Amino acid sequence: MQKTASVTIDDIHAAADRLRPHLTPTPLLRSPLLDLRCRGEVFLKAECLQQTGSFKIRGALNRVLQLTEREKAAGVVAYSSGNHAQGVALAARMAGVEATIVMPEDAPQVKRDRTRRLGAEIVTYDRLNESREEIAGRLAAEKGAVLIPPFDDPHVIAGQGTVGLEIAETTQRLGVELDQILVCCSGGGLAAGIGMAMAAEHPGARLFTVEPKGFDDVRRSLVSGGRLANPPGGTSVCDALLVSTSGQITFPLLKSLKAEGLAVSDQEAMAAIRFAAEELKVILEPGGAVALAAILYGHVATKGLRTAVVLSGGNVDRAVFDRAMRYAV
Amino acid sequence: MQKTASVTIDDIHAAADRLRPHLTPTPLLRSPLLDLRCRGEVFLKAECLQQTGSFKIRGALNRVLQLTEREKAAGVVAYSSGNHAQGVALAARMAGVEATIVMPEDAPQVKRDRTRRLGAEIVTYDRLNESREEIAGRLAAEKGAVLIPPFDDPHVIAGQGTVGLEIAETTQRLGVELDQILVCCSGGGLAAGIGMAMAAEHPGARLFTVEPKGFDDVRRSLVSGGRLANPPGGTSVCDALLVSTSGQITFPLLKSLKAEGLAVSDQEAMAAIRFAAEELKVILEPGGAVALAAILYGHVATKGLRTAVVLSGGNVDRAVFDRAMRYAV
Repeated sequence: MQKTASVTIDDIHAAADRLRPHLTPTPLLRSPLLDLRCRGEVFLKAECLQQTGSFKIRGALNRVLQLTEREKAAGVVAYSSGNHAQGVALAARMAGVEATIVMPEDAPQVKRDRTRRLGAEIVTYDRLNESREEIAGRLAAEKGAVLIPPFDDPHVIAGQGTVGLEIAETTQRLGVELDQILVCCSGGGLAAGIGMAMAAEHPGARLFTVEPKGFDDVRRSLVSGGRLANPPGGTSVCDALLVSTSGQITFPLLKSLKAEGLAVSDQEAMAAIRFAAEELKVILEPGGAVALAAILYGHVATKGLRTAVVLSGGNVDRAVFDRAMRYAV
Repeated sequence: MQKTASVTIDDIHAAADRLRPHLTPTPLLRSPLLDLRCRGEVFLKAECLQQTGSFKIRGALNRVLQLTEREKAAGVVAYSSGNHAQGVALAARMAGVEATIVMPEDAPQVKRDRTRRLGAEIVTYDRLNESREEIAGRLAAEKGAVLIPPFDDPHVIAGQGTVGLEIAETTQRLGVELDQILVCCSGGGLAAGIGMAMAAEHPGARLFTVEPKGFDDVRRSLVSGGRLANPPGGTSVCDALLVSTSGQITFPLLKSLKAEGLAVSDQEAMAAIRFAAEELKVILEPGGAVALAAILYGHVATKGLRTAVVLSGGNVDRAVFDRAMRYAV
C-alpha cells in the first residue's frame, strides 16, 4: 500500500517505538541563570548530544528500519554535506545496510571523514555544474536503492517528531504545561514533526520556527500563506540551515499547525554558541543555536512563560567555535 | 533520632524520590566512534550537563530538602572553591534557604560570581593562614546553621548515588548488563554513592575510581587497605580532584564495594576534554574527564565489554579548555 504523503501522530508514536531500542533519550536541560535572564522557565532539548551530533539520525533510522528485506539488500542513498549524511550513515550501519552519500567535492574534510568512518561510501560531485538530486536519483535507480530525503518525507518527519514526544514525556513528568516551543528550521522536517507531537501533547503551546536572517523563507511563507524561496546569493554562518525552500509536505503541516516564524542574525547565533558552552556545557553549531538565540535576544516574550527550545546540532568547525567564544553574550 | 554514619540503598532511593521534582535526569550518551575505538560498548553519564555544571547539586539538595523548619530558618553553610559551592547555592535557592559559602580569597572571580548569582553569600578567607573548616564551623555555630560537607556525609553520598540509579534505569530499559563502571574520584562521595547503587542494580559490575596521578590516594588506599593521604606539594590541572584524603564514611564504603583504583596523567585528562568536545559535544573540566581518559588510554580493558563512564563536571576555565583543544587525542 502506498503511504500517503503526510504524517499523523500515530506515525510519530510508531517511530518512537521503532527508535527506542537504538537511541537513548536526549536530556531536557535547565539553567537557573538562563531562567533569571529570561524571567521565565526555559527547557532546552539538547539534540546536539544525539548520536552523530544532531537530530538527523532519528528520521534516517525511522526510514531505514522500515525497509523491506529486498530494499535492505540494495542499500540506501542520500545527498547531504552535513548532518543528514552522518545520520543516514549511522542509521544504515545500525541496520546492517549499505549507504551511499552524495557530497559536494568541496565539502569539509572533517565531514567526509566522519561519514566514511561510520561506514558509508562517499560519491562526490561538482557543486557548480552538477545536481546532487539528479546524481542521487540516478544512483538509487541503478542500485534499486531507497533514497532518503533530508526532510520532505513522511518517515523522516515522523522520526524527527520523536523529539517532541520526548520533550512532552519529561515536561509531563515534571508537571509543566509549556506555553511555547522554538525549533531551529531549514526544510521544516524537525519543526513539522515536533509541532505535530506538541499539538497532541501540549495543545496550548505556540510553535515558532527560527531561521537565520536572509534564509527566513518559512517565516515569510507563513506570513504570506504560500511557499516562498530564499533569494539566491545570500550567506550565513548557519551552514545547516541554508535550504532554499521548505517542503511540499513540511510547509502545509507547519501552516496547519499555525506555526509562527522568527529570524535571528548570525551575530546572535554566534553569541548563543558561547552562552551554551559557558552556561549549559554543550557545544552547538550556529544552525543549532538559532532557537536559543531567539530567546536570548528577545525575539519572543519569555517573561512568566514556560518555553521549550530545541538545540538541534553541534557539528561545528573549530574555527567557527573559537570565533563564537569571542562574541559578547 | 541520630542518623547512623553510613548509607543504604534505601537512602539512595529516598534521595531519588526527593530530587525527582527538582532535577531532570542527565543523559547516558553513546558515541559510535568511541565504541569503535574501545572495541566495546561505552555509556557516558553526562553530569557536566547537570544544573550548576556538575553532580554536586544532587547531594546538596538531598541534604537541604531534609532540613527541619527551624534549620531552614537558620540557613546552611559550606566551604568550597568550586563545584560544591555552586551546588549548595542552588540547592538553598531552590528550597528558599539562605546559604553562606566559605571560599578562599584568591578563588577565581568566575566561580565567586556564579555562586553569588545563585544567591549565596560569600565569606572569603586567607588560604595560607586560616582554616576553611574552622571558619565554616564557627559560622555554622554562630548562626545555628547546618554545615553541608562536600563528601563525607550520608545525605550527600546518598544524593550523589542517584547518578547510579539513573544509569541503571537507562541500561535496564536498553537491556544492557554492565560489566564495569568508572567514576571520577576525589573525596569519594560520588564513587561510593554510585557504587552502592550499582551493587544493587548491576551486582556483577566492577567499580573503578579514577584519580589524577599524584592525587591517587584512593587507589593506593584500596591497595593497602588503609586510608592514606596524598603527599603535600603536588599539582594537577584537575582542580576538582585535589582533596588530600578520602572520607571516614566514603573510604570504608569503597572498600566494602571492592572498588579498584586507576590514575591518569594530566595530559590524558586534557586530551579527553578535546575528545568529549569533538565527539560528544559536551564541555568537561579536567577533573570531570579523568574517567573518560582512563578508557581512551587503555588503563582498563574495554574490548568486548559494556562500560559505563561518569563525566562528572564541566566548569572549566576558558584558558584550560583552549589548551585542551590543542592536545592530540
